[in-house]
Parts: sequence; structure tokens; C-alpha cells
Amino acid sequence: MNIEKLRSETPGCAHVIHFNNAGSALMPQAVIEAQQNYLNYEINQGGYEAVDHFRKQLNHTYQRVAQLINAQPQEIALLESATTAWVKAFFSLTFQPGDRIVTAKAEYATNYINYLHLAKTQQVDIEVIPNDESGQVSITALEKMLAEDQQKTIKLISITHIPTNGGLVNPAEEVGKLAKKYGVLYLLDACQSVGQMPIDVQKIGCDMLSATGRKYLRAPRGTGFLYVRESLLETLEPREVDMFAAEWTTTDTYELRQDARKFEYYEYNPANRMGLSAAVQYALELGLDNIWQRIQQLGDLLRKQLAEIPNVTVQDLGQVKGGIVSFGVKGIKTEFIKQKLREEGINVSLIVANGTLLDMQDRGLDHLVRASVHYYNTEKEIEQLCGVVKKIILVHTRIEHS
Amino acid sequence: MNIEKLRSETPGCAHVIHFNNAGSALMPQAVIEAQQNYLNYEINQGGYEAVDHFRKQLNHTYQRVAQLINAQPQEIALLESATTAWVKAFFSLTFQPGDRIVTAKAEYATNYINYLHLAKTQQVDIEVIPNDESGQVSITALEKMLAEDQQKTIKLISITHIPTNGGLVNPAEEVGKLAKKYGVLYLLDACQSVGQMPIDVQKIGCDMLSATGRKYLRAPRGTGFLYVRESLLETLEPREVDMFAAEWTTTDTYELRQDARKFEYYEYNPANRMGLSAAVQYALELGLDNIWQRIQQLGDLLRKQLAEIPNVTVQDLGQVKGGIVSFGVKGIKTEFIKQKLREEGINVSLIVANGTLLDMQDRGLDHLVRASVHYYNTEKEIEQLCGVVKKIILVHTRIEHS
Repeated sequence: MNIEKLRSETPGCAHVIHFNNAGSALMPQAVIEAQQNYLNYEINQGGYEAVDHFRKQLNHTYQRVAQLINAQPQEIALLESATTAWVKAFFSLTFQPGDRIVTAKAEYATNYINYLHLAKTQQVDIEVIPNDESGQVSITALEKMLAEDQQKTIKLISITHIPTNGGLVNPAEEVGKLAKKYGVLYLLDACQSVGQMPIDVQKIGCDMLSATGRKYLRAPRGTGFLYVRESLLETLEPREVDMFAAEWTTTDTYELRQDARKFEYYEYNPANRMGLSAAVQYALELGLDNIWQRIQQLGDLLRKQLAEIPNVTVQDLGQVKGGIVSFGVKGIKTEFIKQKLREEGINVSLIVANGTLLDMQDRGLDHLVRASVHYYNTEKEIEQLCGVVKKIILVHTRIEHS
Repeated sequence: MNIEKLRSETPGCAHVIHFNNAGSALMPQAVIEAQQNYLNYEINQGGYEAVDHFRKQLNHTYQRVAQLINAQPQEIALLESATTAWVKAFFSLTFQPGDRIVTAKAEYATNYINYLHLAKTQQVDIEVIPNDESGQVSITALEKMLAEDQQKTIKLISITHIPTNGGLVNPAEEVGKLAKKYGVLYLLDACQSVGQMPIDVQKIGCDMLSATGRKYLRAPRGTGFLYVRESLLETLEPREVDMFAAEWTTTDTYELRQDARKFEYYEYNPANRMGLSAAVQYALELGLDNIWQRIQQLGDLLRKQLAEIPNVTVQDLGQVKGGIVSFGVKGIKTEFIKQKLREEGINVSLIVANGTLLDMQDRGLDHLVRASVHYYNTEKEIEQLCGVVKKIILVHTRIEHS
């Protein structure tokens, strides 16, 4: 990987040290241009006219996204966010009272709140898989739960691949093997993993997968996608549809589309979609294996250097760790650290307890700083981040002592 | 209104004759700049960092939208489309088997398909209000339906203000008076009316209203909003939420937001929202009364000139007519007309039967051409459109006869 070239193709690299890739990564020039190029046409020719003009390229997005995760284009719905994708998939499933949903400790708040909603309205039970000693989903524990499920009440395994609050990469593939063995549906929230590491839905064995554009894929905000396995498409119906997802055939009837686009609505922002398409292409050209290797290297380096700073505690769990680095500094508020770093042109974000409540409560954590690396970050930037953290601690200690 | 000035502020006016405003209107420079200005910051500084920087302006969007329809900011949810807004409102309502939904003849396919879905899954009945002799919703017939509803099974009046397929403006205010008188909830699809005419939710008396940005408001695609009356907000719960709409408070509990933003998700495209905000401000500055007067004048002029062309039939209904002009040409396919007009730099769109099936079937119509005027169109452009239509008819007749 030619990091200098990749940085020169990323305008933001000249202005900031961006360690907020798990929030929203910097867009490369190719993405910006795809978006601008479309917008220019739309501004001068009209909204519908631009869709007509770029129809082929817009449609090609499905193929690119499918290629990214080793799926078929008809298994892809392009949506406004990972949340929209996840929610559409989750609420297309039907549950009976007493059915169980199995999830993980570090499950994302949005997902868990919707489990709670279903528990309240449809008397579904939520079961949380314990972690193994490394902090990832325990495969042994999950197999035990599934093996003991004589009544077959476990109807869904629904976990987050890479949680929002740390380096942990859950063993999605091992989970998939168990889902298949025991015939249980498997929904994977891949919001932080798509674009960061190779994702192969055939290898993982998930039935549905949700993802966003703005994070590791480096696409515009307001983009995301849903994958639904073809064999499942026939039986899944979205809870709401529009006239794109279903055709009004006679006064009293309508016909749903067959492909995953039944989860879409007609209206979307095409310029953003062009950006998503370019971002996927950019990632494919770089190679997800290369991207993943570089991110892991940088993540490990950042963890190592942060851990060497007195009063800093790195909190990442898991056997395999990705680009998200979570840490706290004894005696200093995370909001203060974020603000001071921003003043020095360094972007990080914050982790709050109720984003992943079960995990944070279990570990007695409240607030953390999240520094998330991407392949375009450099070893020097990591040094600079650590240097500023040291300075913040020093100044803070001086003030406290004066 | 200084039309030349307004046209010079609209880059597209130099390139096309745009009669596809009911599809997606041309954005003014102020909207383009608001979007670009945001994007530039985001590209160089980061996605979350841009939201921090523009937080005040992004939040101000709620006030502007509220002002546009005479509502309160807390009654507004900003969403990705009118469809998203309508669907979120509609499916937050609870129905019992035997409950009735009252709608109009020219109801939009998306809405009607979702009524059918509810009819199928929850045994709800759909009742269609007949039109009066002008072709608009009959207020007399609606009052009769409501007065005869001894069992109070009518739970919702849900109509489209300005249907997608013609000039008709339904009497939203008169419907609102009846909704209030009989204590029935009232959902108004204002997708084509917001930005085209003055909309005052207090005067109209609707409880919920959905709208888009891309049509008469001249905002970016992928924007829209939902209004929910404050007195209703407490009892309405969205079917799905994310961690922005609800806070995960303890292991087993979450707390919904109080304001209309509980219908939103955290993730959206902020650049688009900045564009929406600028578009609303632009409309407010011009004055909705002025806009509406000009659109009605141009709509009438276009109808008059088209009607004078042999073989052309204008199909617009209603006592009050807006900017959407629908017409057919005897013996010539609408797709051919659209394509020929586009070759001459004139944008129109097509009306298909199953977009408003009940109305189109009733009138024995299949396909129509839709030419929708905005205030920035000119009398000369109308002449040009009619001139090209005449030419198409002439050439077509010659070919047929040769």
C-alpha cells in the first residue's frame, strides 16, 4: 500500500489527524468526485433527468456492493443507514410469544432497544451469550444454549460483528457455523466491519447483514445497505412498502418485488449513492485483505503506545482486534480529552455507557475515548496523538497540583 | 416577484426548460451553496466534526420548517423522504379489526398499498370518499360518512392534499373541520403541496402531515419531514427506534424521546439537511402567497394553451388547481412525447395508472404526460412547450400518413 499516495487522494489528510474512522471516515477524492459529478448534472438538468442519465452507474452499485461481501446483486437493498437496514431486516421477522432472540454482551443500543420493544409487545425473550475469557462471544456457551434448546424456541441469533466501543472482533464465522448446524436465523450487524476487513457472507453464513457507508467504507453520510440471503427473500416481507417495493395491481391487490429492493423506497439521494458506489470500488481496488492487515497493524501500534503512557488504560477486548481503540485516562474527563485533541487538529470520538450498556456495566466502565485508525493513518500520527495525550495529562496534573 | 432575478439564481434555468417540478424541482444557488459549504467542511475536517461545527444551523432547520407550516419545532421530525415520514406516522397508529380508514379517490399508491397491507393483516376496512362534481373530495359525502358512523369505527381520515397525477387541490381545510367536529384523527400527505402553496397546520387542522424537500420546496433529494401535533405526540410511538429516539436506561428499560424526533434515527446526511434548511428559508423569504399566486397563474396559462392544441386533452380536476398539469395526446404514446420534449431541452414526467389507480381507473385513463410549473417558469417557456407539442403531433401525423 502506497500510504502517501492514498493520503494525497484524501483532501482531509492535509487538514486533520483523523482518528474518528469508526464515527465517519474521511472521503477519498474518487468518492467526492462521483458525488459532485452527479450533483453538477442534477443542478443543471433536473433530479429525475439525472437519474435517467446515470441509471446504469446507479444500478451498478448493487453489483459492487454484492462483490464486496460475496453476495448476488438481487440480495442487496441500498438504504440510508445501517440502522434503517438493520431495523428493516429485524422487523420483517415474525416471532411468537416465548420465542428467544440470542445476542451478545457488546450489543449495540439501537439493536437491544428494539429487542426490548419486542419483548414488551410480543413477549419474546432475550438471551445474552456470555463472553469467553478473551472477551468475545463464547462459542462454547452459544453451542450449549443451542444444544439445550429442545423446544426450538431460539428463533434468531443477532449480534454485532465489531461493537462500537472497542477493538473486539466477534467470531462471526464460528457463530455462523452454529447457526447453520442448529437451523437458526442469523442477523449480523456489520456496521463497523464492512470496509475494515474482508466480509464474505458465504463464509460467515449469516442470513442477513446490515452495514453503513460513512464509516470504514469512506462513503458519504446517509448511505447504507442490507443483505438478505436469496433463499430467505421469498418468505421475508417488509412491514411497510411503497410503490417501488410493491406494485398496486388491482383495486384490492398489490404485488411485492421479489428481490431485496422490496426493502427500499423509491426516494433516495442519488448523488450519495454514486459516492457509495465509488467508495466500494475504491476499497475493492485496494483489496480488503490489504486494508485489514494495515488497520490491524496500526491498531496494535496505537494500543501499545497508549498503554505505555502512565494513567492511560486501554480497554479493548477480544482474540482478534480491529481498528477501534478505546481508552480512559485516570482522573481526566473524556470530553476534555476530546476537546483538547480537537484543538490540536486530532479527531477522536467518545464512548458512552448506554451505547453498549450490558458490556460497559459488566466492566464497570462509564466513558471512554475512542480513537479509530484507518489505513490512511500513519505511524507518525499515532505518535502525535500519544504526544498530545501525554501533554494533556501533564498540564492537567500541573493544574491539579497548583 | 422578480422572475429574471430568481432565474439567474437557479443554474438549471440556463440549461433546461423545467416542467418537472412535481418530480424534483431545480435547486436555487442558495440551496446548492448551503450543501456545498457543509460538504467542504466535512471533506476537510470529518463527518462528526462537521456536525459539531454546524450544530446550531442544523438545529435551526426545525424552526424554519415549523415556521413554514405554522407548527412548533418540537412537532417536526426531519426524515429522508415524504414516504418515510408518512409511513412512520401511519404505522405508529393502532387499529382494531373492523376499524375504518377513510381516504380519497386520488390517493397515492404508496399510501393505498399500506392501507391494503393493514386490511390484510389487521382486518381494517378502507372507505373511499366519493368526489364531488368538480373532482375533488366531496365534503358532503365525507360528512355523511362521519355522521352515520354510530359505532365510531372511522379511526382515521388520510388523504393526499395535491395528488401526483394532476392539478387537483383537495379541500384540506374543510376536511380538517369535519375531522375535528367528529373527533377523528387526520393525516395529510402534503408531498406536492408544501412549497407550492401556503400550508398552515392550525388552519388545516391535520394531526399529522408528511412532506418532501425535493419537489416544490426545491431542496436536495433525500430530504423530507413529518409534523405531529403536540397533543398527539405523547400517545404516538414509532414502531422502531434507535438510540437517538430512545435512551437505553437500564438493562431492561429504555426511554423514548418526548418530541417528534423520536421518529428520526441518529444517522442522516447533514449536507442535505443544510440544503433543506436553505430551501425553506428561500421559500419563506419569497412568501408562500406570492409563490402560490404565480404557480396558479402559470398552471392556468399552460392548461389554456394546451387545450387549444388539436388532439390534446387536459385532464386536471378540481375547484382549485395548482401547478401540476396533466394531459394526453390522441394517438401518441406519452413516453414518445416525453422523449421528444427532452431532446428539445424540455423536462416533463409521466403519469402511470397504478400511481393513483382508483382515480385513473374511474376516469378510464392509463398514461398521461405531467408538466408541472414552478414560479421560475416563464410564459415564454410555456409557449415553447406548447410549440414542441404541436410539432410532435405534426411530425407524428405526417409519419402516420406517409
